[in-house]
Amino acid sequence: MIKIIKKISVPLISLFFLINMSSAGIAETNISAEVGFVFNTLLFLICGFLVMFMAAGFAMLESGMVTSKSVSVICAKNIGLYAISGIMFWLVGYNLAYGIPEGGYIGTFTPWSDSSSLEAGYSAGSDWFFQMVFCATTVSICSGAMAERIKLWPFFLFAAILSGVIYPIVMGWQWGGGWLATIGFSDFAGSTLVHSTGGAAALAGIIILGPRFGRFDSKGNPKAIQPFAASSIPLVTIGVFVLWLGWFGFNGGSQLALGSFADAVAISTIFINTNLAACGGVLAAAVVTRLLFGKTDVIQMLNGAIGGLVAITAEPLAPSPLAAILIGAVGGVIVVFGTKLLFSFKLDDVVGAIPAHMFAGIFGTLVVPITNADATFGAQLIGVLSINIFVFVVAYIVWSIMNSLFGIRLSKEAQAKGTDVTETGVIAYAIRD
Amino acid sequence: MIKIIKKISVPLISLFFLINMSSAGIAETNISAEVGFVFNTLLFLICGFLVMFMAAGFAMLESGMVTSKSVSVICAKNIGLYAISGIMFWLVGYNLAYGIPEGGYIGTFTPWSDSSSLEAGYSAGSDWFFQMVFCATTVSICSGAMAERIKLWPFFLFAAILSGVIYPIVMGWQWGGGWLATIGFSDFAGSTLVHSTGGAAALAGIIILGPRFGRFDSKGNPKAIQPFAASSIPLVTIGVFVLWLGWFGFNGGSQLALGSFADAVAISTIFINTNLAACGGVLAAAVVTRLLFGKTDVIQMLNGAIGGLVAITAEPLAPSPLAAILIGAVGGVIVVFGTKLLFSFKLDDVVGAIPAHMFAGIFGTLVVPITNADATFGAQLIGVLSINIFVFVVAYIVWSIMNSLFGIRLSKEAQAKGTDVTETGVIAYAIRD
Amino acid sequence: MIKIIKKISVPLISLFFLINMSSAGIAETNISAEVGFVFNTLLFLICGFLVMFMAAGFAMLESGMVTSKSVSVICAKNIGLYAISGIMFWLVGYNLAYGIPEGGYIGTFTPWSDSSSLEAGYSAGSDWFFQMVFCATTVSICSGAMAERIKLWPFFLFAAILSGVIYPIVMGWQWGGGWLATIGFSDFAGSTLVHSTGGAAALAGIIILGPRFGRFDSKGNPKAIQPFAASSIPLVTIGVFVLWLGWFGFNGGSQLALGSFADAVAISTIFINTNLAACGGVLAAAVVTRLLFGKTDVIQMLNGAIGGLVAITAEPLAPSPLAAILIGAVGGVIVVFGTKLLFSFKLDDVVGAIPAHMFAGIFGTLVVPITNADATFGAQLIGVLSINIFVFVVAYIVWSIMNSLFGIRLSKEAQAKGTDVTETGVIAYAIRD
Repeated sequence: MIKIIKKISVPLISLFFLINMSSAGIAETNISAEVGFVFNTLLFLICGFLVMFMAAGFAMLESGMVTSKSVSVICAKNIGLYAISGIMFWLVGYNLAYGIPEGGYIGTFTPWSDSSSLEAGYSAGSDWFFQMVFCATTVSICSGAMAERIKLWPFFLFAAILSGVIYPIVMGWQWGGGWLATIGFSDFAGSTLVHSTGGAAALAGIIILGPRFGRFDSKGNPKAIQPFAASSIPLVTIGVFVLWLGWFGFNGGSQLALGSFADAVAISTIFINTNLAACGGVLAAAVVTRLLFGKTDVIQMLNGAIGGLVAITAEPLAPSPLAAILIGAVGGVIVVFGTKLLFSFKLDDVVGAIPAHMFAGIFGTLVVPITNADATFGAQLIGVLSINIFVFVVAYIVWSIMNSLFGIRLSKEAQAKGTDVTETGVIAYAIRD
Repeated sequence: MIKIIKKISVPLISLFFLINMSSAGIAETNISAEVGFVFNTLLFLICGFLVMFMAAGFAMLESGMVTSKSVSVICAKNIGLYAISGIMFWLVGYNLAYGIPEGGYIGTFTPWSDSSSLEAGYSAGSDWFFQMVFCATTVSICSGAMAERIKLWPFFLFAAILSGVIYPIVMGWQWGGGWLATIGFSDFAGSTLVHSTGGAAALAGIIILGPRFGRFDSKGNPKAIQPFAASSIPLVTIGVFVLWLGWFGFNGGSQLALGSFADAVAISTIFINTNLAACGGVLAAAVVTRLLFGKTDVIQMLNGAIGGLVAITAEPLAPSPLAAILIGAVGGVIVVFGTKLLFSFKLDDVVGAIPAHMFAGIFGTLVVPITNADATFGAQLIGVLSINIFVFVVAYIVWSIMNSLFGIRLSKEAQAKGTDVTETGVIAYAIRD
Repeated sequence: MIKIIKKISVPLISLFFLINMSSAGIAETNISAEVGFVFNTLLFLICGFLVMFMAAGFAMLESGMVTSKSVSVICAKNIGLYAISGIMFWLVGYNLAYGIPEGGYIGTFTPWSDSSSLEAGYSAGSDWFFQMVFCATTVSICSGAMAERIKLWPFFLFAAILSGVIYPIVMGWQWGGGWLATIGFSDFAGSTLVHSTGGAAALAGIIILGPRFGRFDSKGNPKAIQPFAASSIPLVTIGVFVLWLGWFGFNGGSQLALGSFADAVAISTIFINTNLAACGGVLAAAVVTRLLFGKTDVIQMLNGAIGGLVAITAEPLAPSPLAAILIGAVGGVIVVFGTKLLFSFKLDDVVGAIPAHMFAGIFGTLVVPITNADATFGAQLIGVLSINIFVFVVAYIVWSIMNSLFGIRLSKEAQAKGTDVTETGVIAYAIRD
């Protein structure tokens, strides 16, 4: 189902020997069914492991961005959320998304089970794996924003709900062939479905949580950087490079097929546009911070790469190289000013996840019609609003309920002591004896 | 030969499209011989580079787990052992394993040479590469346990013997079609052959070496964590994510063929089960440490992932998703209690390699018959005992001889000063000027 | 064009199975054109993302090697140069290289545009992507040598010139079918074209820049290590492992085709030789430093891996395993003594890039005729001299002009304060509160 939906933007392919004919959205090819099956499955597996590795990228980016007293907890959150997402997406998520009736709103609460057939064109397990790592990515996005003051196990509970229920529902709306697909919404690899979803869930979380103690002064300005300095810029840098690498899988694999001339060409184009958008994001953030603030802010360059990548994700196939660079550059600029915007509302997003994923994701989705004639601005707006609002509201309710039931925020003393000590009992950097 | 042996556990998923019946162990397919050859070779190359990258994963995990005075040496050991393994496995290892007579005990002492033919179904070089990185993994496993008090060059000598002789011998017993294969032992990707082998060699080593000075107090209890604190939890976390990533290659590539519907489906299943087992290991360790010790121990979560991965490695294809989660969860619990067990014997395994690799490997191998009807408990027990005992005894003898010839342990002064200073002359973290 | 050129060194491994004769440089195969197209494109994409990840490897290696006051800037340089290279290679680089007339000297100043056809044998976009990451690698090489005293934006400007003009010109001479290809120069994956080019550009840069303040004492001896100690050896180690991993893509992908028996066999051989050369480099550096200097220098082992990899890159297909080990070992030794050589000239190459890339690259290119009978020493010498001299001279002029226009060197005060503070305003390691 996802195949057909996504294929709308990829006009030509087929799995069978037929020289011309094919059903809508399948490219013509004379590659045999079984060879095509292996190619398509291989695409999902390779792109799947690249996206899986993004979990490590988020762990590094966030470990580097938090203060050195909250690093072990970030590591625990990231390895834990990936584990939780994997199980939840098997237990309920996949069928909640793909068991949806055509044009519908929600699938079924049943575990996924394998049922591969040659006719499907790819192995069912490889598709599950590829979709699972997308689900985990969504959860990874929201782990960093709430760092340094959230309790560990409430976060894990939220991760289970986000990966098992919230994300699968919006995923089904579009990639499962639900109501958003029916109205013509277009989101190739998930600028909105994945990235805004993660960002909106995080936004709800940080509103309920409140900022770290001492993050803003009495006038609402962020405190000078020192007490909240990033623990390790090289870690952030590895993290961003790993995410950039993983994004080739994220966007490239969303072509959903490799086994034809047309698919191979399309994936190559996607790689190029994905890369160029990130380039644009990096350089835009570098120039903007240098001109506006006097110094070339490496953190904004790194987050600018993410902003560019998120922005191109809604449509990495149709743009020209120049368009990809520009879309990415705007994504990078959005990150810089989005960070300021959150500050002005005294919202404390520790790693800048909301500007990079939610804001840039909204932008990227809205501009799809500029490069892809099949998309309409109206449908894009409906998709962006419905998903962001739905996720934000549900997440807000879930966080609120958890907060009232058992509290989601650590004490001021715990923050002062460091969440590593209070939550995991393991200090992160015993660099000096 | 390995192909035929391992294929026993990959039965008839494929009963479609069988125009050409093929010999035992080759999945039925109508993909042409040359296309299949390229697919199979590509599988070995991709999975091979993933497993190669596990060398980096071990280097990071171990660098992060040791104290900050012994990090450069760990880096030297890990890059060095990978280099040594690569050369030894060419010089003697491969043919010692695969030159074995059917049902036999040992192959030939000759260097590997290339001899690819289309009929083999994959390029000989790609197979060598894939098997070599398994060999290197075995050696990587034992590098961390003995950290902080072993001399560098004796370790390198042992690495040469383990990669050139010990591992290839046990590998030949099973994957070369030797006596263990004949009796029906089943170990898909090496829970015992690789992981227990590495762990048993490490166990012999730490017994001979003794614990770090000051690791246990006079009553035999481990000292409070501070003086032996892990140098960097983010490094451990990257390491574990890299290992998790590499494991898709480790287990997926052990299907040994990609070029058919059946193989593509099988590899997808292996990816899923490998992932779910690691998820189970992480969460089991999180829950157990939280309930028993009050805090969610991030180190045990990370090692729990390894325990889960090792446990599923003996049979990543047959289990259902639920079974994979449970097998992995038990692997994670084994890591937690295995660590305690070693403490109780005053054995100082710096990075927890023995619980994660040897203990979880034994468990994973013994439970194969539960999910794979072709395996028998008797054969599994024989395989586990013979390999673990053989490796332990030979490694014990080798370590003992080296110890009496030139001593393998650094002085108390060297440990106090830090092995980085005494062995490599390079301090690991010059974070502060 | 590159395909045909490079194929010269991949001769007739394949004279089997030749039902369909094919044009010069395309291996005989009976794989259909479209299946071959997908395989070849897939090779470029996989190897391309591996080489892309080398950008992260350089970032880590260099972050770990510089002092802790200049780490954020190194991160900014590495993410920035990769972004710049991607855009410049699209804007002008690719066609400057491949738009060259046969036997000519320079291509055209036009942006790249996609034009895929089945007949080409691979998607044009995948080829662009693969060539782009090579271009970025060239720039990465020269970012570390000049660390800790160069201004950020002049470096970015140079990166644009190197990636957009200098590298593409020499690339066109050989891989575009220009004059060096015509005279029979042989450089399979770029020991000279990529690695010496990066190294020669760096050499020009450090001559103009001068050493870091205080690097050499009044007698010209390097100061004791402490004030210039590497910030993190584990980071260097990750970096080297990532580069080693990426090199499988770098050399393996330079076979330029996967879709035949012969190509699959060749790539397997390339993987093996690439790996063994690195092994040789590591061990040679370990032995040499242990014997000459008393301690096993882990930094030289790590750089030795790079030296070995660079040395084999000119011809990773023809050598036997033993020859590959020896070539790599000499590469490792060159790194050790090349580092001393630079010291003796008071040249301050912060990360050892020039010995590892330029010197080992020259060696590797010159010894190609020993293992590849198609190459001649005369042509190799002409290629090495022409490229190294051209790049050095042009880079020297560019650096000089920039230096006289606006100065490329930071002040003594900035170095003392740390370039992280002055250039990006972000300290790299806020490990301690």
